[in-house]
Amino acid sequence: MPIWYDWLGKAMTDSILLDNASSVPIYRQLHRQLRGMIVGGTLIAGHRLPATRELAQDLGVNRATVSSAYALLEEEGLIHGHVGRGSFVSALNSETIDSKERTGRTSFESDSVGVTSYGRSALLSQASTEISFATSRPLAGLFPVEEFRESCQEVLGDEVAHTVLQLGSPLGYAPLRQYLMEEAELRGIGRSNDDILITNGCQQAIDLLARALLRPGDAVAVEEPVYPGLKAALLQAGARLVGVPVGKYGVDPEAFDRALERESPRFAVVTPSFQNPTGATVPEAARRSLLASARARGVMLVENDLYGELRYRGVAQPTVKSLDELGDTVLLGSFSKVAFPGLRVGWMIAPRPLIRKLAEIKQATDLHTDQLSQAVLLRFAESGRLGRHLERARRAGLAQLEAAVDGCRHYLPEGTSCTEPDGGLNLWVRLPAPLDADSLLSRAQMRGVSYLPARYFSVNRAEDRAFRLSFGGLTPDEIERGLRILGDVFREELERSTLAGVGEMATAMV
Amino acid sequence: MPIWYDWLGKAMTDSILLDNASSVPIYRQLHRQLRGMIVGGTLIAGHRLPATRELAQDLGVNRATVSSAYALLEEEGLIHGHVGRGSFVSALNSETIDSKERTGRTSFESDSVGVTSYGRSALLSQASTEISFATSRPLAGLFPVEEFRESCQEVLGDEVAHTVLQLGSPLGYAPLRQYLMEEAELRGIGRSNDDILITNGCQQAIDLLARALLRPGDAVAVEEPVYPGLKAALLQAGARLVGVPVGKYGVDPEAFDRALERESPRFAVVTPSFQNPTGATVPEAARRSLLASARARGVMLVENDLYGELRYRGVAQPTVKSLDELGDTVLLGSFSKVAFPGLRVGWMIAPRPLIRKLAEIKQATDLHTDQLSQAVLLRFAESGRLGRHLERARRAGLAQLEAAVDGCRHYLPEGTSCTEPDGGLNLWVRLPAPLDADSLLSRAQMRGVSYLPARYFSVNRAEDRAFRLSFGGLTPDEIERGLRILGDVFREELERSTLAGVGEMATAMV
Repeated sequence: MPIWYDWLGKAMTDSILLDNASSVPIYRQLHRQLRGMIVGGTLIAGHRLPATRELAQDLGVNRATVSSAYALLEEEGLIHGHVGRGSFVSALNSETIDSKERTGRTSFESDSVGVTSYGRSALLSQASTEISFATSRPLAGLFPVEEFRESCQEVLGDEVAHTVLQLGSPLGYAPLRQYLMEEAELRGIGRSNDDILITNGCQQAIDLLARALLRPGDAVAVEEPVYPGLKAALLQAGARLVGVPVGKYGVDPEAFDRALERESPRFAVVTPSFQNPTGATVPEAARRSLLASARARGVMLVENDLYGELRYRGVAQPTVKSLDELGDTVLLGSFSKVAFPGLRVGWMIAPRPLIRKLAEIKQATDLHTDQLSQAVLLRFAESGRLGRHLERARRAGLAQLEAAVDGCRHYLPEGTSCTEPDGGLNLWVRLPAPLDADSLLSRAQMRGVSYLPARYFSVNRAEDRAFRLSFGGLTPDEIERGLRILGDVFREELERSTLAGVGEMATAMV
Repeated sequence: MPIWYDWLGKAMTDSILLDNASSVPIYRQLHRQLRGMIVGGTLIAGHRLPATRELAQDLGVNRATVSSAYALLEEEGLIHGHVGRGSFVSALNSETIDSKERTGRTSFESDSVGVTSYGRSALLSQASTEISFATSRPLAGLFPVEEFRESCQEVLGDEVAHTVLQLGSPLGYAPLRQYLMEEAELRGIGRSNDDILITNGCQQAIDLLARALLRPGDAVAVEEPVYPGLKAALLQAGARLVGVPVGKYGVDPEAFDRALERESPRFAVVTPSFQNPTGATVPEAARRSLLASARARGVMLVENDLYGELRYRGVAQPTVKSLDELGDTVLLGSFSKVAFPGLRVGWMIAPRPLIRKLAEIKQATDLHTDQLSQAVLLRFAESGRLGRHLERARRAGLAQLEAAVDGCRHYLPEGTSCTEPDGGLNLWVRLPAPLDADSLLSRAQMRGVSYLPARYFSVNRAEDRAFRLSFGGLTPDEIERGLRILGDVFREELERSTLAGVGEMATAMV
């Protein structure tokens, strides 16, 4: 049945050499060798790969190892799976992949995990993308895997394991809700009429709010620029987005008030601490102004506090929610940025009637949030491991942040400006004219560096010259190397355009 | 700060006695003793409970133990949490809880995990509900916790751990998709244009389909009766539900064809194997008829195959998807019924363009499904542990099924009919006139037994006399005890109504 396997048979398998003593994981070794066979032409388009269980058996490795290697090949667009038929080597110049897919990404949050699959020609430029500033995420190398594993063991060795594995509540795992309630109390958050709903990260919290509160055409006030996930969830509900400019001190209170007065939005979403994409933070006095405006205009305020705990220097600001004596403000929190993005556990603190309504919608949406992750994250947090991890992450974050800001100063062309946040995972870079960050991206990618240009973040205003530099997922070293390369790319373009300008001028002269 | 704690002080803590040698888990011991204090009046309404960390310290137990005990009290409505203030003992006759909440449940899938919280008066009847036939779920006692724990350890001890904890793909964890694709192939499922999307259980698959395909007022054909989660997701999208009657052999092909012709639904959802709530299974010939109708009428067919693997006897039927040569049928699968409902991991196999569209919606909804559970379930499956668990679950399932069918025959009043499925977790019981399963529920609950009456499952037709008997979560012993009690309740009502009938007749005679 498997064409490739029958044809090349055992000879193929024999040519794969896996070294258990190597520091390179087995699945990566396998991936590299299969990749070499495809790129080198030993395996040509249409060849069927053996089933993972067959290859695993022949190579004497775990089936998961083969699956992981295939998965990497698939992500690179080198192979594609056909349900019911197996995995096949993809065509060299696939005509099924249009040029937009080859050069761009439809995914809004990451460069390697999007919905779009790449053709092989895209791969050839993608493959060299070693340094990605494109995703707002923490540094995987910092993940305390061993401590997380212990938390897992404790939960599953505990008498509560059966409860965790059984059907749960749409509101969330009760002991986690209890813990978060007490933690919120310590931070002065929450009023007597508030309740907590556990969500699949902050993204689902926004989606539930949109589904509960919006009718097509309703206005929602958001920051300008704002992160793409927020735009996607609100636009999906048919919202009309009203952008409120973000400056050095975050969203501008006066512009916010005017927008609320003029547009009467159904609600407003703000990220007062280390806003994504700019990294800007709103000072306390301005936070009070936002709150006063929301109350005066009768607009529900949604505070996205995803990054608040990632402060690397300076003085902590109180959440808007804690300043809100009436308690109408909705607070969104999550473990995804402070711990592990792969686990989808966030929460919302809001007035009880709203929480009940959202829990009903959530139940019809996906019953409840995964309980294994809820229980393990609870254990990770209440054992003190999360606190220790956060301390390490903050120390590392300061070094990453400084590398990013210093790198922008040293390597990017004169006239570049960048924000200088005190925390978070992102900063916002604006290039000098005539540099266009959007059209320069492909050239940067050819040199192995990527970022997300401003258009992904624009609400009502287009901006060509800016881009988001997400430094959270990279080491200081990678950040410096990446910015040096970007500096080269941008300076080359400046020189080219100066020459072109002279050339054009000369032409015009004659 | 904590009123209760200051007032009763150390004396309170001292009166709690926890026995490490007991087979009763510590958190249950603590729950019972706190419960005793509340019900007994030692702790009265408005008393504030100590924070979990304080009580844990005083008692020398893990904080999670106290959280779990509080969580149980909260679920019972004995205490309530105020974000920002702590946990308080609830009022005896809470006037904040209306009579509907006191007697009914708004939750659609379970009796103990719903959105609704119970007042204490509800608790007094709920508390004695020892045997619940209300939830379609597997038996927690069968969960192979140790094997699951090993799967967790292997994933987190593996080189892929960092990948699992980092941001993932909206399509799902690639190695799991690869595995499911190969498993589907072994079962003859999937065509060359198909792809796989990982969802948060089957519930999210339905929700995504509804969001992608439905406009308010669009018709969707579903089985009548049908499980409440399906109704909720479709109604949330504004669908108009068209019920197709389910008989002994599942959904009736002729009625199905007529409904498709008459109503031109946007799509049709069927559960051909061990349908929820009836347990009915569609024979192969009828499956082909459904497929032919869907194709002839141009209606997309969605096959919910949640229970297909839970066959305890008889001959396996091919999935409709595997009979579909063109491959347009959408197949929904999940680990929740065959393994652990608390982990929200399901999948959808469908034509690639649809999968891409749904993945984009999913990304805006919650980025992606939790990766810890995806990776651990993959390891659980490919290590052979899932297969061994399924064998045990099927053996246990046969005993449960036989206890349920035998119990209905032996204990329920003459004239009762019940379905006799060969697998699944549910059967459908119809009582003889004039018994009304809905109004008799509260009396059954007073005797410690619950079930879900027919109205939760009705689409277009009302039915008073039937109810769903979900036997999957109970041991054969509990099933027998529960049915004996239900038999008593129903027979008492029959006697009462006969007497009343005689009385009325006598009155009429004179």
